Amino acid sequence: MGQTLTEKILSDHLVEGDLTPGEEIGIEIDQVLMQDTTGTMVWLQFEALDLDEAQTELAAQYCDHQTYQFDFKNTDDHRFLRSAAGTYGAHFSRPGNGICHNVHKENFAAPGKTLLGSDSHTPTPGGLGQLAIGAGGLDIAVAMGGGAYYVEMPEVVNVRLEGELPEWSSAKDVILEMLRRETVKGGVGKVFEYTGPGAESLTVPERTTITNMGTELGATSSLFETDEKTKDYLERQGRGDEYVELTADDDAEYADEIVIDLGDLEPLIACPSMPDNVVPVREVAGEKVEQVLVGSCTNGGYEDVLPAAKMVKDQEVAKHLEMIVAPGSKQAGEMLAREGWTAEMMAAGVNVSEATCGPCIGIGHVPASDSVSLRTFNRNFEGRSGIEDDNVYLCSPQVAAAAALKGEIVDPRDFADEVGLDAPGVELPDKYDGSKTDLIYADDAIDDELIKGPNIGEVPLQEPLGSHISGETLLKMEDNITTDHIIPATSDILKFRSNIERLSDFTLSRVDETFAQRAKEAGTGVLVAGENYGQGSSREHAAMCPMYLGIETVLAQSFARIHKANLFNFGIVPLAIDEETYEKIEQGDDVEIVDDVADAVKSGQEEFTIRVNDDWEATADLHASERERRILTAGGKLPLTKQQAEGGAAPADD
Amino acid sequence: MGQTLTEKILSDHLVEGDLTPGEEIGIEIDQVLMQDTTGTMVWLQFEALDLDEAQTELAAQYCDHQTYQFDFKNTDDHRFLRSAAGTYGAHFSRPGNGICHNVHKENFAAPGKTLLGSDSHTPTPGGLGQLAIGAGGLDIAVAMGGGAYYVEMPEVVNVRLEGELPEWSSAKDVILEMLRRETVKGGVGKVFEYTGPGAESLTVPERTTITNMGTELGATSSLFETDEKTKDYLERQGRGDEYVELTADDDAEYADEIVIDLGDLEPLIACPSMPDNVVPVREVAGEKVEQVLVGSCTNGGYEDVLPAAKMVKDQEVAKHLEMIVAPGSKQAGEMLAREGWTAEMMAAGVNVSEATCGPCIGIGHVPASDSVSLRTFNRNFEGRSGIEDDNVYLCSPQVAAAAALKGEIVDPRDFADEVGLDAPGVELPDKYDGSKTDLIYADDAIDDELIKGPNIGEVPLQEPLGSHISGETLLKMEDNITTDHIIPATSDILKFRSNIERLSDFTLSRVDETFAQRAKEAGTGVLVAGENYGQGSSREHAAMCPMYLGIETVLAQSFARIHKANLFNFGIVPLAIDEETYEKIEQGDDVEIVDDVADAVKSGQEEFTIRVNDDWEATADLHASERERRILTAGGKLPLTKQQAEGGAAPADD
Repeated sequence: MGQTLTEKILSDHLVEGDLTPGEEIGIEIDQVLMQDTTGTMVWLQFEALDLDEAQTELAAQYCDHQTYQFDFKNTDDHRFLRSAAGTYGAHFSRPGNGICHNVHKENFAAPGKTLLGSDSHTPTPGGLGQLAIGAGGLDIAVAMGGGAYYVEMPEVVNVRLEGELPEWSSAKDVILEMLRRETVKGGVGKVFEYTGPGAESLTVPERTTITNMGTELGATSSLFETDEKTKDYLERQGRGDEYVELTADDDAEYADEIVIDLGDLEPLIACPSMPDNVVPVREVAGEKVEQVLVGSCTNGGYEDVLPAAKMVKDQEVAKHLEMIVAPGSKQAGEMLAREGWTAEMMAAGVNVSEATCGPCIGIGHVPASDSVSLRTFNRNFEGRSGIEDDNVYLCSPQVAAAAALKGEIVDPRDFADEVGLDAPGVELPDKYDGSKTDLIYADDAIDDELIKGPNIGEVPLQEPLGSHISGETLLKMEDNITTDHIIPATSDILKFRSNIERLSDFTLSRVDETFAQRAKEAGTGVLVAGENYGQGSSREHAAMCPMYLGIETVLAQSFARIHKANLFNFGIVPLAIDEETYEKIEQGDDVEIVDDVADAVKSGQEEFTIRVNDDWEATADLHASERERRILTAGGKLPLTKQQAEGGAAPADD
Repeated sequence: MGQTLTEKILSDHLVEGDLTPGEEIGIEIDQVLMQDTTGTMVWLQFEALDLDEAQTELAAQYCDHQTYQFDFKNTDDHRFLRSAAGTYGAHFSRPGNGICHNVHKENFAAPGKTLLGSDSHTPTPGGLGQLAIGAGGLDIAVAMGGGAYYVEMPEVVNVRLEGELPEWSSAKDVILEMLRRETVKGGVGKVFEYTGPGAESLTVPERTTITNMGTELGATSSLFETDEKTKDYLERQGRGDEYVELTADDDAEYADEIVIDLGDLEPLIACPSMPDNVVPVREVAGEKVEQVLVGSCTNGGYEDVLPAAKMVKDQEVAKHLEMIVAPGSKQAGEMLAREGWTAEMMAAGVNVSEATCGPCIGIGHVPASDSVSLRTFNRNFEGRSGIEDDNVYLCSPQVAAAAALKGEIVDPRDFADEVGLDAPGVELPDKYDGSKTDLIYADDAIDDELIKGPNIGEVPLQEPLGSHISGETLLKMEDNITTDHIIPATSDILKFRSNIERLSDFTLSRVDETFAQRAKEAGTGVLVAGENYGQGSSREHAAMCPMYLGIETVLAQSFARIHKANLFNFGIVPLAIDEETYEKIEQGDDVEIVDDVADAVKSGQEEFTIRVNDDWEATADLHASERERRILTAGGKLPLTKQQAEGGAAPADD
């Protein structure tokens, strides 16, 4: 039987388990990447593991979220990250050089290699045939120490693309169509492999828009086969020698197949406040827009900004709105500037900002109250833009530019008819010729010791798992709670990312401002949630902070993949409950796990009994591998890895 | 007897008083400007005055401080300002279009006209022969209502410039030399008129660097005569028809004369943490630098960034530092982009940011802890950069670029010798051809009513002055307390500028975190300070917030001009005490004004008796004009203006 491309790459990297969907496998990691809001914790954990040097083929540290540096803590973090990269042999990308996924794609993404990144949009280079997975920081630290990465073997789904994109439709519409059909939960436990003639028709930057935003489907990763277009892209980046031909076998068996005819796609838009709330642009046409943002890891490339720049050239953006373009990388920004597009955008009334993720997570350019913001980004979770009750729509650069000119949401086809505008098309440059000045390669490192500012704290460590877990239900939450709810990323909070003691004060504050204080007073407690708890960003702080506050278990109907791994990693027991139990349990209820928890976890027990208010009982399930049970028992992955190291076992065993 | 240029322009605009230095005069205002952090209060006050439309020849509202929009409150402020400008007939400059002084210089500054601005660096267009003065927002509101502006007739000092600037020295070094000689108090009550062959040798952008930073001398304004260079500059801006020849009479009598031979000037630098802490660059050469910032209203013009861009072209900024360029205006940014300099800077490792004031007041790009930041800005007051205990140096773009390349402070002459570098020179472009898209002219306004977000509050009003003032000395402060100390401008605080109730919680927090709380508990109280209390920014919030907290009098050895006017405007009695009294009085002491305050203020009494702890007495002086006494008596300028309006008197009488 033939293999899918995912299976091929996994086979090449398999160190434990076999490729049975749902079973845990351990794989070797070739490359890791970190960004600035998760990276500090990765390096503090790497330091705590007493390791000398990154063992992966390549490690790269980017500074992209807090580039506006609103607080010295941000700037201190960047300096710390440079020092850590230098000390431990990683490449370092300076603030202003761009978003990790964009810069990694340009410089390091390699077909057939595995990449683990402490950011949920790590799958971006799947568009180049690299199997890339987002994970919690501690997993990155362990992988950098040479340890395998453990993940449930995903189902591989064939997304067969037919036809070609019509004018004014774009790669963004492909992934929006996927979200419309499959929802934000549709990719959980899956890798989407994009195949067929439609896939072949797409450029690499178009492919990476799709793989990037595959994260919003909840997918483990997304992948394209490599071909002449991949080779061509790498050549234009000056890395033609890194091309490897990679295809699925003709007789590969997929778990499922989805067919999309690109020719049928019209311009789509995700309405507030979930990326799968997708409708044709025409359905919401006429909505007044006050802010248009072009950029991000999804649509911040040269090829993304260029069509928007072409559309606004010699035009003026509507007077009542602000259009901001933040290129995804300095390579893109420099090329756009060199070719005159930056000047043209400025002339049209665009505020051209730095290469940054910032506004995507509410760091800068927060929308005005009671206003619509249209963004080429990948997430529009409520409040993520930095203001509660926001109205954020997600769309392609073409739809964004049309709205900026018209002042309201408009299908670019209708706008083009109205004003007589040609479709800008998508062009690759002959050569991606941005400078590399902002990359400090590991070999050129200027630091050999860590530089810690006063806000850079300690890594908290948890005790080994005890026999008894009980506590009050401190919070009962709904479906689809994101890690943005658990630990918001707005600038006033983000600056404490390297300081868990201080950061934990903001835990779940967007759900209930009193939570952290109540948890502290209680000393321990239980969280209850609906489906898909912990979706969104990979930030491990969403597990570390509850742990720091004494939370020992989360009862949820289901968990998002990365967050569940993070709960294990920080010694919190994730128990699955059914809908009936979820409905019955109330905030304030006292919950006790009847079993001897440590024994049960260790022995492989799956069904646990919870007793509520000493009144009624229900079953809760622990879906955990042998390895995850070892982690939980030790109180988390860091204590376990340290134990193993002290006991003589190499951290690679984990 | 001949007149100085200052006297000529004042004569042309005089509506009350005569031109005797130290005596109060009332002048007609031709133009007003507001920026975003002071402008919201100006318009709320204008609204409270029930006036229909700006009566000045020109009113212009800029958005420049909070352009990164870290909080929806910033974005709401911008929207409110656009709506206010539209409603009341002012021009509006969108966020991203640049710093008020730069954009005003480019578009509206007019020789011979008077300009009043709610920003302390308003004197910038003095370099074009415009008499421009910074004032509190309420003064702007009243001037916009057609009222005269009242100010003590300044002494006019002739700053005679001989010779020409040597290579590598710049206009920044002229004003740094002035600061070195005259100190931050040297200009109080003065206008500096720059004359002589050296003045003629300078371009308009060089002149405006000098007039801009004249504010740091404490000067009321700074002024250059107009000449062919002025005409030429206006022509290149497409405004040649606005040129007016303006010179002092040959037999003008100046109060004093300062002579500077430009040929003697070497590259200078202001060391932490006061702009007058000036030494030759060579004296501090070798100091390691971690951040270099080029921009601001002092050195953010096209002609300022260009030399830095030329110096870094084909070079790389030092790996351990970050160089950020934030052009002063979009005109500058667009031209630099169009000519390829933006791409060159990016290639060299510069992070090219938006046109913004931001970092100058700690909004973005805050330095790392325990690090040196070199800036082409005009102020380095401790903590203003956004981190306490900062180490901010002020210098020219040439010195900044040399440091960025070398990684440490270096005299650019020495650096040029070392690496073989030609001096970049200063060139004006043939034509300033940036677009005007971001200016919404009053005639093209898109709003006709105010749009207030939830953070936009009410203007607080004070009761009429009472007979009795007494209270505890809640805070005893040192010399040179700045308005940055009184109301910090960092982003976490700035966002409350439109909401006095909330903002007042931060009053003097940088001096004593407990102050606001203690003042609230006490209900009233007294402030004591040394020399030059309230220097720096013009922000009237530094008077409004203490008023809101119940402060009724400030006892200081001396007051900065704008802040003193703001104290009158908000009904706080500014009393001058001598050094002996200052030394003797302690924080916590009970202070009582023995006189019947309302009667004494009304009757013109100058000497007041203060009684401390019911134990000892001293004299405190009220230096106030008839008009200022009327304001104080009414409880401030807004109550007075409203009273007058209700009583039938036109606000113009104030």
